[in-house]
Amino acid sequence: MTLPVTMNALLLKHDGYAERPSGTVLEALEPYVEAGTIDVPRPQASQVLVKVRLASINPSDVMFIKGMYGQPRKQGQPAGFEGVGEVVAAGSDTEAQALIGKRIAFATGLSTWGSWANYAVAEAGACIPLLDTVRDEDAAAMIVNPLTALAMFGIVRDEGEKAFVVTAGASQLCKLMIGVAKEEGFRPIAIVRRDDQIPLLEGIGAAHVLNAEAPDFAARLAAVLREEKPRIFLDAVTGPLAGQIFAAMGKRSRWIIYGRMDGETTIIPEPGQMIFMHKKIEGFWLTEWMRSAGPERRMKAVIEAQKRFSDGRWSTDVTAVVPLEEAVERVADELSKPNGKVFIAP
Amino acid sequence: MTLPVTMNALLLKHDGYAERPSGTVLEALEPYVEAGTIDVPRPQASQVLVKVRLASINPSDVMFIKGMYGQPRKQGQPAGFEGVGEVVAAGSDTEAQALIGKRIAFATGLSTWGSWANYAVAEAGACIPLLDTVRDEDAAAMIVNPLTALAMFGIVRDEGEKAFVVTAGASQLCKLMIGVAKEEGFRPIAIVRRDDQIPLLEGIGAAHVLNAEAPDFAARLAAVLREEKPRIFLDAVTGPLAGQIFAAMGKRSRWIIYGRMDGETTIIPEPGQMIFMHKKIEGFWLTEWMRSAGPERRMKAVIEAQKRFSDGRWSTDVTAVVPLEEAVERVADELSKPNGKVFIAP
Repeated sequence: MTLPVTMNALLLKHDGYAERPSGTVLEALEPYVEAGTIDVPRPQASQVLVKVRLASINPSDVMFIKGMYGQPRKQGQPAGFEGVGEVVAAGSDTEAQALIGKRIAFATGLSTWGSWANYAVAEAGACIPLLDTVRDEDAAAMIVNPLTALAMFGIVRDEGEKAFVVTAGASQLCKLMIGVAKEEGFRPIAIVRRDDQIPLLEGIGAAHVLNAEAPDFAARLAAVLREEKPRIFLDAVTGPLAGQIFAAMGKRSRWIIYGRMDGETTIIPEPGQMIFMHKKIEGFWLTEWMRSAGPERRMKAVIEAQKRFSDGRWSTDVTAVVPLEEAVERVADELSKPNGKVFIAP
Repeated sequence: MTLPVTMNALLLKHDGYAERPSGTVLEALEPYVEAGTIDVPRPQASQVLVKVRLASINPSDVMFIKGMYGQPRKQGQPAGFEGVGEVVAAGSDTEAQALIGKRIAFATGLSTWGSWANYAVAEAGACIPLLDTVRDEDAAAMIVNPLTALAMFGIVRDEGEKAFVVTAGASQLCKLMIGVAKEEGFRPIAIVRRDDQIPLLEGIGAAHVLNAEAPDFAARLAAVLREEKPRIFLDAVTGPLAGQIFAAMGKRSRWIIYGRMDGETTIIPEPGQMIFMHKKIEGFWLTEWMRSAGPERRMKAVIEAQKRFSDGRWSTDVTAVVPLEEAVERVADELSKPNGKVFIAP
């Protein structure tokens, strides 16, 4: 197979980290990436070259291109942490060679090349060969959200309490997690910001859905917490809402931060609760989990995710598939629409 | 031995908890306790009656009488969490009977009677028979501060890093901890608020002492953290200073809150650090440690504390010994003086 010499990609415009935080909403792509043409990258021994069919846009991509994610940017490199495509070339390692010609879901990282491009480079170990039954839209978003959902639900399962609290309840990630939780008899308490999200989440298995904007939110939250006694709080927003929820929770509660969609100041309303109620605040990062979970738990999660997408228990809601050449112009607008994912088609 | 029917005591004026937090400085005793006469209490089977020689005043006592401690107040009962005295009567249990006539250090709790009184009731298991070599002033303050110091230093030791950070560095508790740490080759970084505390703490073994009020504090803190790489932050103050220190610390740092001397709002300046730097915020409470540590670790700490007070490695700095009848008037004023402890002599 003959590969082109150059390709189109969305290239990072900055190095390193942002000098000051700028909120997690993407007002526009243009300040952070630009469409450009660069050489098709070459995979190292342990890597594969992927012809990208579809790349996803996750909150972590937005944080990354804005310079607020836990990895430094590299000017001139393509952005994009995950996608789906075909392996068209590979490094010399057996594991990489074995993937040639396969359709795979893949994740990229610091030492590889982003998915918002015609071609991407991924570590062979970060590729998942796909069953034919998995749609491209599901495959392109099969790692970041689904594995985070499964890994965080594992924390809930280990803690032992059936009920747990999630913020940004209508996110793709939470919807996946709520589905799994319901099947296993757990009781998700989802916090949202719009009334129209309530029936949606109740339909897929949330035990309670509370609108944080409702005037009686504090009272309803207190009643639900009293009834359900959750100890795990999986939080994607931080800010005043998260502090309020954590302060209302009972003894031995754990506030696990995995996103900070609210750029406002995050307060610990009652620090004495850390002392007398044995509460804790910690974080979750999939990259860290991947490092520490061990291959068996990782593989189990990967297989579980593919099964769920194949048999229809999970399904990715699609807001838009935007061609690469239209991305800089359209992506921010598409991302502002609720309830679905936005993809880039190179 | 004939016991009187009534006794003098400082009695709580309120039930339960404060409706709103009021800061941790004791502006006066008078709003919270009053001198009064009540019946001498009777010990239950597992308890002893102690003729109090000296009772200590800890920050936890101040928080408790103000209704901001993790235990509800009971109107009309004597306050005071610890003291030294002689066991003059005991319940029927062998363990309690065995203490009759002994000089002991004791701690009180929810089911017993406070030490700010002529007589107190303590669980036999919360009494420490004293060596003659331990002074009353050391014995009266031998449980709350020393055991907290030893238990929290145990956390530092378990973590493995030699350096650690403490706020309220000139407190009795921190001075005890710094002494132990120095002996074992650890490197305490003490944060204080007055320059005259710097030589004092350097003298007893702090590797660095930083004045948080100094104009170059942020820069000096950054330099020390870079050099020493501490991961444990033992915090008695909370508020803006604690948030600032925690945000400046490196990967995998643990902010362990055991007091909240600063009533100002406590902020997590960089919630993203919980995700990407694996930082954690938790609490320490001696009562919880006593429950969970197991008898062997508890006993080891108790013996260690007595040895240190006996051989002079530890010594309690005394600001004042206030007679019970003068306490309501004088205690707040004596507590406002730095660097020493205030005792009540019934």
